[in-house]
Amino acid sequence: MLDRCIGTHRVRQIQRAIRHGKITLLCLFMTVVVLRGTIGAGKFGTPEQDFNDLRNHIYASRKHAEPHRVLTESNQSNNSKNDEANSAGDANNYAAFDINRILVDEGEDEKPDPNKPYSLGPKISDWDEQRAKWSSENPGFSNFIGANKPRVLLVTGSSPKPCENPIGDHYLLKSIKNKIDYCRLHGIEIFYNMALLDAEMAGFWAKLPLIRKLLISHPEIEFLWWMDSDAMFTDMAFEVPWERYKDSNFVMHGWNEMVYDQKNWIGLNTGSFLLRNCQWSLDLLDAWSPMGPKGKIRDEAGKVLTRELKNRPVFEADDQSAMVYLLATQRDKWGDKVYLENAYYLHGYWGILVDRYEEMIENYHPGLGDHRWPLVTHFVGCKPCGKFGDYSVERCLKQMDRAFNFGDNQILQIYGFTHKSLASRRVKRVKNETGNPLEAKDELGLLHPPFKAVKVSAS
Amino acid sequence: MLDRCIGTHRVRQIQRAIRHGKITLLCLFMTVVVLRGTIGAGKFGTPEQDFNDLRNHIYASRKHAEPHRVLTESNQSNNSKNDEANSAGDANNYAAFDINRILVDEGEDEKPDPNKPYSLGPKISDWDEQRAKWSSENPGFSNFIGANKPRVLLVTGSSPKPCENPIGDHYLLKSIKNKIDYCRLHGIEIFYNMALLDAEMAGFWAKLPLIRKLLISHPEIEFLWWMDSDAMFTDMAFEVPWERYKDSNFVMHGWNEMVYDQKNWIGLNTGSFLLRNCQWSLDLLDAWSPMGPKGKIRDEAGKVLTRELKNRPVFEADDQSAMVYLLATQRDKWGDKVYLENAYYLHGYWGILVDRYEEMIENYHPGLGDHRWPLVTHFVGCKPCGKFGDYSVERCLKQMDRAFNFGDNQILQIYGFTHKSLASRRVKRVKNETGNPLEAKDELGLLHPPFKAVKVSAS
Repeated sequence: MLDRCIGTHRVRQIQRAIRHGKITLLCLFMTVVVLRGTIGAGKFGTPEQDFNDLRNHIYASRKHAEPHRVLTESNQSNNSKNDEANSAGDANNYAAFDINRILVDEGEDEKPDPNKPYSLGPKISDWDEQRAKWSSENPGFSNFIGANKPRVLLVTGSSPKPCENPIGDHYLLKSIKNKIDYCRLHGIEIFYNMALLDAEMAGFWAKLPLIRKLLISHPEIEFLWWMDSDAMFTDMAFEVPWERYKDSNFVMHGWNEMVYDQKNWIGLNTGSFLLRNCQWSLDLLDAWSPMGPKGKIRDEAGKVLTRELKNRPVFEADDQSAMVYLLATQRDKWGDKVYLENAYYLHGYWGILVDRYEEMIENYHPGLGDHRWPLVTHFVGCKPCGKFGDYSVERCLKQMDRAFNFGDNQILQIYGFTHKSLASRRVKRVKNETGNPLEAKDELGLLHPPFKAVKVSAS
Repeated sequence: MLDRCIGTHRVRQIQRAIRHGKITLLCLFMTVVVLRGTIGAGKFGTPEQDFNDLRNHIYASRKHAEPHRVLTESNQSNNSKNDEANSAGDANNYAAFDINRILVDEGEDEKPDPNKPYSLGPKISDWDEQRAKWSSENPGFSNFIGANKPRVLLVTGSSPKPCENPIGDHYLLKSIKNKIDYCRLHGIEIFYNMALLDAEMAGFWAKLPLIRKLLISHPEIEFLWWMDSDAMFTDMAFEVPWERYKDSNFVMHGWNEMVYDQKNWIGLNTGSFLLRNCQWSLDLLDAWSPMGPKGKIRDEAGKVLTRELKNRPVFEADDQSAMVYLLATQRDKWGDKVYLENAYYLHGYWGILVDRYEEMIENYHPGLGDHRWPLVTHFVGCKPCGKFGDYSVERCLKQMDRAFNFGDNQILQIYGFTHKSLASRRVKRVKNETGNPLEAKDELGLLHPPFKAVKVSAS
């Protein structure tokens, strides 16, 4: 998960608002909102109209906002510590090296046009037609790669900068290896993003421009599977039930009641979801994005979300809360194509899973995907790439190691090995080799899984 | 590249030899060797016979060798620094966390049987037949996934431990992203290894047991492509000329003269090579492995290699030198199936490439794979995962960033972006979006490359 800037940034925002004398206007506006709430609601509900008014107000005042600086690094070539490291011998010593020597400051990002509402890109209204035409002209890139098997692209990523703390990159590495393993077994391709395509949509919102770009560039993709870098596959044998979603375009782990009835901010999870490549999805992305642009828009939208959703803490707007809000307030428009899945852990909150791995090994087996053997264990809140997480570092890292090994064991057993324990990096042999390797029993059926077989035509 | 333990380990070996009173025997033996060299040679040359005698001698005395301890980590749960980090607030602080708190010591590795010569596994003599039978029974896993397109598995990996220096894991992460990108475009699967399957074959030799295991587990693989973690793809458009190798089983970058005539230790490179899945390859792996077992065997073999090869420094036996030696001394047996490729950079030494990237961009284009636009830039000697490299850290990391961006630009241009400079992590848009994304020109042909198209049969 990319960092959420909460406290310091908001304080700065508030200070700027005071300087510009806008807080008075805001107070007046909120009074009007409360009054309106007791008077009546429009088609999509008063909160939405208010948000739109708020957004337009913010756009009008955007020209006074400070420029955004992202991914800024300082060039400290004159640092005395570097001079020491430069001496012969030290020059080859990684421990003595200051990474700031090679960081490059490329200046500021382009300022967004303050008069233009944010847009993910030029409106496309005939994507289904464009896509169908392209597919018929390109049979070598069909949308289905087997009977009932759609072509899926798993998308994930992380910052192009080294993690703020050293251990973070190591866990990012283990996490991508984990994804490589699952995807290899299941015939899924991977796109690992390290580029910030749109400075306004930095942080957790960065996935939206990326997803849109990939969908419209790759019409051959039937489903795009977004997965956070802090989520790991823990059931290597579970194949997503694609047939179940034949009438759906957007699949997230969640519960209808928690989203539509309670408007609970964790009623669904956007850390692991499936999005079909179609016009509906492009429209959804357009409807999802308005709360994302960094700065005033995102901050103010955050306040709306905290107010409107159940249990949401105070922080800038995040994509997950925005989706709960969008679905809860526009169910008629989107709900029929959204599948909130809870029969298996398309996303599994790590807190309730990681202490049960041994029990799972004792009583169950891979292929179940649910509470008995979760498809995905998602380390929300751990943030190993940053400085501070929401949980104890020791617990997070220990459990991430265990989750990794839990999944890795299912790969290793294919080859006759297993980790010495869920806590250990070391492996031990559990199946002796023979001179007839192809007669060895493939217990989990992961060596040549049926969901991977593809008959290639002769031409 | 996995670490090479040179100085300290050898000194310990020598001290043990002295303690056991064997150095006298060794001196006597060497005298005999020199005398024999002037007397005559057997079928494969005196050095080989001598090596065999030396190896048998070492096997006989192995029971006195100290046990090998690999991947040992210490549990420092009583460390005072940890007590400080445990206090509230610090518990969530990654900067205050000592990773040793969660490292697990799983004890010593099993001791190898001193009376048994090393073996990669039970001898298989009919692999071609086993494989052909399996293929005919499993049409969903054919060896060829398109006309002239073999099924290829790219194999790479790194240690399961965090790098000794913090920045190393970040470069491993960028390196695997780079490989994911190339392989996605070229329809190649990836296996990222983090398990040490055989403690005796640690370090650069670890690839041999791994490769053998993967070949015999996956008969559907036609070619296994080993690639070091410090090698990066810098030509995303270059497709390996598979047809060229239809009569070869083993392809490495190198030069016939340097291997067979000069016995130059860098006459070929084993950091990036193609190995066909067949009986011949299993036999080659068996012939390659004897110099690998850690300890006396590897040390003594290192001395043989330094003596026999041109320009080889003094250090324990490495897989690359061993391959030069094997081919040079047994050309009749292996040479006809080995292709030493130098028409393009299946491996490209970074030192002569990285300063020319701007010149390449100016004058050439992707798809050439050679000195004009190298397929692979290989950062031999940089060792960013360790403490010390063979080159300046600043130069290595700066150039690794440039190589990564040079390759990444070819991916980003598909989507209309590019890095702001070869030194910068940041990207900028270079192609405006339109409402008709499928009509956009695909200059490099990487969006839907012909070498990726696969016609899937209806059933």
